[in-house]
Amino acid sequence: MDKLTIVKVGGKIVEEPDTLSALLKDFSMIEGAKLLVHGGGRSATRFAARLGVETKMVDGRRITDDAMLEIVTMVYGGLVNKRIVAGLQALGINALGMTGADMNILLSDIRPVKTVDYGWVGDVREADGQALAKLINENVVPVIAPLTHDGKGHILNTNADTMAGETSKALAKLFDVCLVFCFEKEGVLRDENDDASVIASLNSEEYAQLREDGTVNGGMIPKLDNAFATLKAGVKEVIITKAGNLSNLTKGTHLKA
Amino acid sequence: MDKLTIVKVGGKIVEEPDTLSALLKDFSMIEGAKLLVHGGGRSATRFAARLGVETKMVDGRRITDDAMLEIVTMVYGGLVNKRIVAGLQALGINALGMTGADMNILLSDIRPVKTVDYGWVGDVREADGQALAKLINENVVPVIAPLTHDGKGHILNTNADTMAGETSKALAKLFDVCLVFCFEKEGVLRDENDDASVIASLNSEEYAQLREDGTVNGGMIPKLDNAFATLKAGVKEVIITKAGNLSNLTKGTHLKA
Repeated sequence: MDKLTIVKVGGKIVEEPDTLSALLKDFSMIEGAKLLVHGGGRSATRFAARLGVETKMVDGRRITDDAMLEIVTMVYGGLVNKRIVAGLQALGINALGMTGADMNILLSDIRPVKTVDYGWVGDVREADGQALAKLINENVVPVIAPLTHDGKGHILNTNADTMAGETSKALAKLFDVCLVFCFEKEGVLRDENDDASVIASLNSEEYAQLREDGTVNGGMIPKLDNAFATLKAGVKEVIITKAGNLSNLTKGTHLKA
Repeated sequence: MDKLTIVKVGGKIVEEPDTLSALLKDFSMIEGAKLLVHGGGRSATRFAARLGVETKMVDGRRITDDAMLEIVTMVYGGLVNKRIVAGLQALGINALGMTGADMNILLSDIRPVKTVDYGWVGDVREADGQALAKLINENVVPVIAPLTHDGKGHILNTNADTMAGETSKALAKLFDVCLVFCFEKEGVLRDENDDASVIASLNSEEYAQLREDGTVNGGMIPKLDNAFATLKAGVKEVIITKAGNLSNLTKGTHLKA
């Protein structure tokens, strides 16, 4: 099978011109087939404030009422996505911006209301690897915004890490997938204040141990749970690293099943 | 060659839930291959006002400075486009939202500054009919927002009528293209206050006459000039009609070369 590199990148790196430009250059240099999943939360929060719409977060997830859905649809699907697409095209990469609604690549269910009503938030039900593979085999590079749809005409706000994970699982049947989660640190750290303490390699047993002793905690737990789940589902390799390391993927934390 | 229907629709019809829903239903019923080009100017103006950005128009064209470019990128490429895509997916149509930057389908030049500096406005240089045809032949229905790019990383604001015309010309080499311009009237009218005065059929000589005697004037002139230019470039049929007539394309004004 051909290799496919799927990169998820969020945070301010995709939202500021200088860092975005460096990121796209590094991404464009990745050899072979590739796919990008991006975030855009900071810009959504900034536009919400300018529009007088209050941003409410619960456990790091955005409550998405009607007004916030308009904003994330505009910011993720329009502003951030199209800037990335135009930037990649300028580098000779045949980028195609998509949400889960486009070509029905990611279908979701509205998150059921338990203790929290997240509003127009979707949990991925199904990713269409075949549709994406057809594009990829034509040298198209999908650039996916963190939005899905419910198949009933509604756009849904969806976590970008989850989308990268589900997309990787679906494509793992058709490619040797290497999934790269970019974030603000060098990798998974033994000491969160020491960037030199990056753990080069981590398997699921070691992870369980680090989680138990509290070395890994907070927001890293859902990220790593999601990452190990993709390995279990057939993804060949998961790397957690800084976006600046995209040009050297031997760095960062390499997860093993 | 297979038939391809290209529909351009702008105005408030694509921006209000009820009219949009009726439009998408009618569009979805068009038999065979199809493609939609949409506008979104009213929403852009509304969001600009909410964001404190002044809307400046010259000859019906929007001056697009940095702040306005952000807004049209969000509103056209995100909000309006993704609502249409999700709505069509719910009707079983495999819609794919695109701007000219996506898959490089419409490359533009920044409009040169003569008497007016339009800012980030693009005049189409090249439309890639082959890339669109590949998608269409896979039963994908492209939904195109009125944005292009300059190939150097910039999104450009581009007139939707022009985009529909250029797309139609490029695709006329590969399909029998029927181009439908939807607007607020029943068609080209002999008396602009009488919807019953629609001219059923119009060739370029008759148009020249109507233009000379002032029957056709104002904003209809660039619209019809653009339409006749597509016929000259190989488009088989151009229809100017009300969006409500999409289910019955025998109505409206049928242009002949």
